[in-house]
Amino acid sequence: MTSEPPTLKIGSLLYEGVDQIDLTGPFEVLSRLPDASLTIYGVERGTVRDVNGLRLAPDAVLEDAPQLDVLHVPGGSGQEALMGDARVLGWLRRQAEGARCIFSVCTGALLLGAAGLLEGRRATTYWAVHHLLPLYGAEAVDARVVADGRFLFAAGVTAGIDGALRLAADLRGVEAAQRIQLEIAYAPEPPFLSGRPDQAPPAVLEKVKASIAERTARRAAAAEQYAAARPR
Amino acid sequence: MTSEPPTLKIGSLLYEGVDQIDLTGPFEVLSRLPDASLTIYGVERGTVRDVNGLRLAPDAVLEDAPQLDVLHVPGGSGQEALMGDARVLGWLRRQAEGARCIFSVCTGALLLGAAGLLEGRRATTYWAVHHLLPLYGAEAVDARVVADGRFLFAAGVTAGIDGALRLAADLRGVEAAQRIQLEIAYAPEPPFLSGRPDQAPPAVLEKVKASIAERTARRAAAAEQYAAARPR
Repeated sequence: MTSEPPTLKIGSLLYEGVDQIDLTGPFEVLSRLPDASLTIYGVERGTVRDVNGLRLAPDAVLEDAPQLDVLHVPGGSGQEALMGDARVLGWLRRQAEGARCIFSVCTGALLLGAAGLLEGRRATTYWAVHHLLPLYGAEAVDARVVADGRFLFAAGVTAGIDGALRLAADLRGVEAAQRIQLEIAYAPEPPFLSGRPDQAPPAVLEKVKASIAERTARRAAAAEQYAAARPR
Repeated sequence: MTSEPPTLKIGSLLYEGVDQIDLTGPFEVLSRLPDASLTIYGVERGTVRDVNGLRLAPDAVLEDAPQLDVLHVPGGSGQEALMGDARVLGWLRRQAEGARCIFSVCTGALLLGAAGLLEGRRATTYWAVHHLLPLYGAEAVDARVVADGRFLFAAGVTAGIDGALRLAADLRGVEAAQRIQLEIAYAPEPPFLSGRPDQAPPAVLEKVKASIAERTARRAAAAEQYAAARPR
């Protein structure tokens, strides 16, 4: 028996304070793709903690990455600390230039924005910061998954699973995606209807908004700072 | 400001070859529960790789765990190696004795089975091994999430998210679960209908079954071995 060598190089960005399911949801799907390798590239070499404490270790560090075919950029509150990080933003820009697909999840899109990669694109991100996308030169599209050319955007957190299945189909065909969906038993049955602002009970929405108000304000300030410096 | 100390001790089992989303899906939900702490207990102290290579690190090792309120047991192919591991099975039994809830995901249920904890229970597990549950003395229920007394079972892989939201509501009320659901934007939109054997195209089902046939046979052998040794 002969088998093809891995032909698709998929790389995920890992950093302190990532929201782990932005990374692990797509990992679950993309790591099962035929003829592909998935590598986790850390901003630092060591183990990091996700926004709620899960300890994840990278396979390699940014500078170890070859040109990736798929660049996967997860979000999470740790994204804030990277919005002015020239090393990380430069890495994203260089990788995005040659990548076949750039796939952000949640506030990973804000990192792409800070890297100047959202200019003129249709995009989506986490519901609480969706309105900030135009400050990065993007058209904010109200959808769970948005494709624009080589760019793919999954809205919030668990949307990365839906986005990754779509990406799997784009890269390796619908049947490959369907096999992965069956393998991971992805036939969701949320016990409540509260996953979107327009579905959640109003009191729930207000409480969540209040709990993240400070973070949202900081993210708005970063977006306004970017917008103020944009070439006109 | 004063705040209540964490009152619910949640512990997840981590082992080499876990299917990471069996762990990380529930982590995403349960780590957001008010007045609760979530700790990852490794079979070994060091970093492990999940079934597809993701590197995860435990917070502590089995013997460090106090009596847990919630015992979370994920599955994955690495479960096979633990089916005869007296240390792990003993830990599960002792923890299960005093836990308020024992929550398995996917083939984590087979570990509970090997520990003798499925006798006389209604349970579910991954679709490919669902028929093995009676060999562990359980009634196999065809549902994504099954509750039986202090036990909660999520069927396959991504079902852990659904199960954990239900558990969140049981532990801290429906509104707490709804807040978490909104925070993690869990309003799934699978791009295909292929997450269950009865939904997947027949060719897809046959290919996935064939790809896991050897593993399924080994799991059947382990279940038959357990059944042969059961007290009658």
